[in-house]
Amino acid sequence: MVIESNRRTASTSVVTDTSKSGNAKLRPVPVSDVTIDDAFWAPRMRINRQNTLPSQYRQLWLTGRFDNLLRVAGKHKGPFQGRYFNDTDVYKWIEAASWALASAPDPDLTKWIDEAIEIIEGAQRPDGYLDSYFELERAEERWTDHDLHEMYCAGHLIQAAVAHYRTTGSTRLLDVAIRFADHIDATFGPPESGKRIGTDGHPEIEMGLVELARVTGDRKYLDLAEFLVDVRGHGFLGNAYDRFGTKYHQDHQPFRDLDEIVGHAVRAVYLNAGVADIYLETGEAALGTALDRLWHNMTERKMYASGGIGSRYIGEAFGEDYELPNALAYTETCAAIGSAMWNWRMLAVDAEARFADIIELQLYNAMLAGVSLDGESYFYQNPLSDEGSHRRSEWFHVSCCPPNVARTLASLPGYLYSVSDSAIWAHFYAQNTANLTLPDGQTVSLRQSTNYPWNGEIEIEVQTSASFSLNLRIPGWCEHAALTVNGESIQSALAPSSYVEIERDWTAGDTITLSLPMPIRRIHCHPYVEENSGRVALMRGPLLYCVEQVDNANVDLRELGIADLSALNSEHRGSLLGGITVISGEAAVASFPAWKGSLYQPMSVSTAPSTVSPVSIAAIPYFAWGNREPGRMRVWLRDLPEQ
Amino acid sequence: MVIESNRRTASTSVVTDTSKSGNAKLRPVPVSDVTIDDAFWAPRMRINRQNTLPSQYRQLWLTGRFDNLLRVAGKHKGPFQGRYFNDTDVYKWIEAASWALASAPDPDLTKWIDEAIEIIEGAQRPDGYLDSYFELERAEERWTDHDLHEMYCAGHLIQAAVAHYRTTGSTRLLDVAIRFADHIDATFGPPESGKRIGTDGHPEIEMGLVELARVTGDRKYLDLAEFLVDVRGHGFLGNAYDRFGTKYHQDHQPFRDLDEIVGHAVRAVYLNAGVADIYLETGEAALGTALDRLWHNMTERKMYASGGIGSRYIGEAFGEDYELPNALAYTETCAAIGSAMWNWRMLAVDAEARFADIIELQLYNAMLAGVSLDGESYFYQNPLSDEGSHRRSEWFHVSCCPPNVARTLASLPGYLYSVSDSAIWAHFYAQNTANLTLPDGQTVSLRQSTNYPWNGEIEIEVQTSASFSLNLRIPGWCEHAALTVNGESIQSALAPSSYVEIERDWTAGDTITLSLPMPIRRIHCHPYVEENSGRVALMRGPLLYCVEQVDNANVDLRELGIADLSALNSEHRGSLLGGITVISGEAAVASFPAWKGSLYQPMSVSTAPSTVSPVSIAAIPYFAWGNREPGRMRVWLRDLPEQ
Repeated sequence: MVIESNRRTASTSVVTDTSKSGNAKLRPVPVSDVTIDDAFWAPRMRINRQNTLPSQYRQLWLTGRFDNLLRVAGKHKGPFQGRYFNDTDVYKWIEAASWALASAPDPDLTKWIDEAIEIIEGAQRPDGYLDSYFELERAEERWTDHDLHEMYCAGHLIQAAVAHYRTTGSTRLLDVAIRFADHIDATFGPPESGKRIGTDGHPEIEMGLVELARVTGDRKYLDLAEFLVDVRGHGFLGNAYDRFGTKYHQDHQPFRDLDEIVGHAVRAVYLNAGVADIYLETGEAALGTALDRLWHNMTERKMYASGGIGSRYIGEAFGEDYELPNALAYTETCAAIGSAMWNWRMLAVDAEARFADIIELQLYNAMLAGVSLDGESYFYQNPLSDEGSHRRSEWFHVSCCPPNVARTLASLPGYLYSVSDSAIWAHFYAQNTANLTLPDGQTVSLRQSTNYPWNGEIEIEVQTSASFSLNLRIPGWCEHAALTVNGESIQSALAPSSYVEIERDWTAGDTITLSLPMPIRRIHCHPYVEENSGRVALMRGPLLYCVEQVDNANVDLRELGIADLSALNSEHRGSLLGGITVISGEAAVASFPAWKGSLYQPMSVSTAPSTVSPVSIAAIPYFAWGNREPGRMRVWLRDLPEQ
Repeated sequence: MVIESNRRTASTSVVTDTSKSGNAKLRPVPVSDVTIDDAFWAPRMRINRQNTLPSQYRQLWLTGRFDNLLRVAGKHKGPFQGRYFNDTDVYKWIEAASWALASAPDPDLTKWIDEAIEIIEGAQRPDGYLDSYFELERAEERWTDHDLHEMYCAGHLIQAAVAHYRTTGSTRLLDVAIRFADHIDATFGPPESGKRIGTDGHPEIEMGLVELARVTGDRKYLDLAEFLVDVRGHGFLGNAYDRFGTKYHQDHQPFRDLDEIVGHAVRAVYLNAGVADIYLETGEAALGTALDRLWHNMTERKMYASGGIGSRYIGEAFGEDYELPNALAYTETCAAIGSAMWNWRMLAVDAEARFADIIELQLYNAMLAGVSLDGESYFYQNPLSDEGSHRRSEWFHVSCCPPNVARTLASLPGYLYSVSDSAIWAHFYAQNTANLTLPDGQTVSLRQSTNYPWNGEIEIEVQTSASFSLNLRIPGWCEHAALTVNGESIQSALAPSSYVEIERDWTAGDTITLSLPMPIRRIHCHPYVEENSGRVALMRGPLLYCVEQVDNANVDLRELGIADLSALNSEHRGSLLGGITVISGEAAVASFPAWKGSLYQPMSVSTAPSTVSPVSIAAIPYFAWGNREPGRMRVWLRDLPEQ
């Protein structure tokens, strides 16, 4: 544990500050040090700043989120509006807007953030407590129900405050957050210290507290985070509503004993992310092995091909192993984001590419499907099959997902690279310029040119003469990657899901080319997943594909499939859906005349198609679905025999 | 429309009194005229009377259902307890107990019913209004929110009152129901009559009102029922919560335009049952054709092999066409019962066997799975696949299902036969003695001997010399039925899903044998149902089968399947689960070593099993599952290739 002095760290816009974490191999790179200027993420970040953040700010006013805070200070009359955790939408919006400022100044955002902070300051009680639902008429109910998200709200406040401090240098919101954190720390802790036992039904504060410890250098916040984790699994939280039980909020077992990821999905991955933060600081083996068991369980048994997680509508929860229904997939946008946050912390521990693979899958597919192309409407649930009824909304009564997408997109430059000692790690590819400071003191500029994810050709120019290792991630989906330095082929294994290290005394102008071939991939799903039996899905690079009715007007998508001889090609269409690579060509369509009007028949009536005919199709990236007129959508297609 | 005079009908314990319905081919048979003494239903009816009804009566007290009614009369202090529709559990329990009295007198039941009726009488307002939630502190909110079930409660009150009147002759509860119905009739109606527009978000009262019209001979109740149906589909009810929309409570289209069964499943089938009651009286073609469209949509696209309906957890609703997930099946017990009630009314219209086929399927499978073998715990949801976590409860916060099962079992003798002119119709087979009065005035005694549903051999002795047609149902599942009269074969087509008519001058002692062969049937499901692709289920007679882990300890049920050469036999085990016929023998188990640790792989990795090995299995009727230790359960097994 390196956090030892009460000295505030300098404000650099890093997403997770593992630079002094005792158990971290990787250190983060400030958001402001990387400028993405590609054709994929850059327009999305611009839409995020120009459309999403302003429209969400309006929603915070329209739906009473600000009013709730203002009424504590007597500046708004009328009742509390909406859900008891609505303060968090304000906090997540501030966090998102703060990360956006790290990429470029923006007077409007700055003004709105300052207005929001002033409102928040006015809602804080003299003792540091801050939760607009539990002030005024409900002040007596403070800390009486651990499933009403008081610490969850505090956690988002802390994350927003840390982001605002790191991106602006201002301690104004940070001071608010510290006062609330100190209040919580004075209230909850081991009984022998004279404090109350407690933890929150909805994890989130753990991540915030560890970051606060990193920012302030005060270990007590880390200790508090550990305490809040250690309380779990001993019956304190009890059953969450009759129907869900203790698993719902991960209170059924002590964390160190967990071997299956269960319950409310966002809670589960936020908890894991917080525990990973603790593990980064303490290196406690029992936490690390528990996290690894949970990771294997999730990625090997409970994750959609989109990276989406939390399959169950009831309880917004993980289902049983292999319970991955397509049309009824819940896969909350927040859950995919929370998983990416967890994997980001796992990646920092030991730089294993398997974690970056999951982050990439979730960012490009499960997260990105959560927001419309115009950045102003959102999916809360992300099914992998639809009959045309699932549409995005401009806001939700429970509106956690929209600002979660916004903070993810705004902080994206901070995820592309990490550094360690005399090494740079390139995790994700997107055209960018990076000015990186290595732990050994060297500063290095890199220029990356690529049309990723549409094309796997990546050129990186080292623009500074320096001596360091460049570690390039070979994605798990990529066979036959090839690498050159200054035109000479590098003889490395280039195994999928690994980092290839190039250690070298670099001269300014040295150029690396990484070629990640992106053939169309047809994938199968584990035979225990009942909905995907006899089905095949299409992927290309990091992207999952789907077919929408609008592109395939004359095909009943329920009968559509891929046969061995199907001939599919990829083709970039700059004018479609903001510019996407389409998979098109000849697929196959089945017909089942024996089943007309019958739902069940004797086994002698075959479920095999009576004819399989070729048909032209077009498939689009899953993230882009639901942006045109409603109609059927399918990810998994029939695996059809040739005829 | 035959209801024309204000003359109360005599009290006979008929379940649905179509005896004067202008559009009914079939008339009902009083519950008291049929005595079931078989090895299947008779023990269940005994358990229903001896265990279920007393334990439910205790629950009504323990959970404040009676207290809510008592506090209106000032006889109980304390707040309203539970949900706003909790009065209905009292009413459904009275209905169930009343039907039980039709089979045999029971002093305890009579005493408890009378106590309950006294409590209900005390809760009625002078103006006839009766709903304990909307009296006292919420009296001002009466009729202000059409989704708070006031008419739904009234409907169950009326059904209970009609059952109590028909089985006891007492008008005490009927008078209460009439006062409430008159209050509703005075309040709601066409605006030109000076009344309010209104209907209920939860249909149910429609059935009650039509029965009340039949009991009282007063057409106004039928007119009111029609009015309540006609209000729907014009936006009056509006969206039910943001997420569900107008389809949730069938307010998206006028009833006569409906062509797809949607929304909350219990509401949908209760509405259809009420409309079928109206159609029985009025014969309005537009209602009949709409009902037929809904029936085809449900049975051909939205019904489980168990007869369960309403696949979606969210909204307790019908899903899209072919959306029939197994583990996530909602299939509320009440929905199957409501569907059986609807089909019972459809059957009365024109005696088509397809309706009786659905009733039989739902009674033996989807309904009966809803109650434990000891009659004291219940399933609300009835999945077709489980990992061991779904268990029955003794009661629910929303406890509609338990008394619904109780009223169904108690009234069962009323469903076996109908009569018409000079004909008897035998719909369902169970050993019984029946003393039937035909519309032409003849009285006929029948003695049916059978071990149905374990065995399809049925013998019916006509014990009265009389001249009538005997119409015997050939179930839709039955090929090769055979029929004799006094040992002589009858040359009829005996088509599945039909009634075979034997018109004859019967002599006492004439004996009919009906042989319904019950081979084990392997069934397939429509290829559009994604979860059942490549799967097969087992049925025998009217029963769906499943495998439970407890009977197949050494098999991973996720790998279990049936191959062409699998050799399965049926065998009755009198000591297992109350006496059931087990399907056992050699099935097949698959292995998938290529999938260890991987959830998604390239298409070149086959999802076909690498080995298929024979394995001994035992399958039990689906209704009996979940009565032993928890473990996996599967209805749909792999359709495996031979190796």
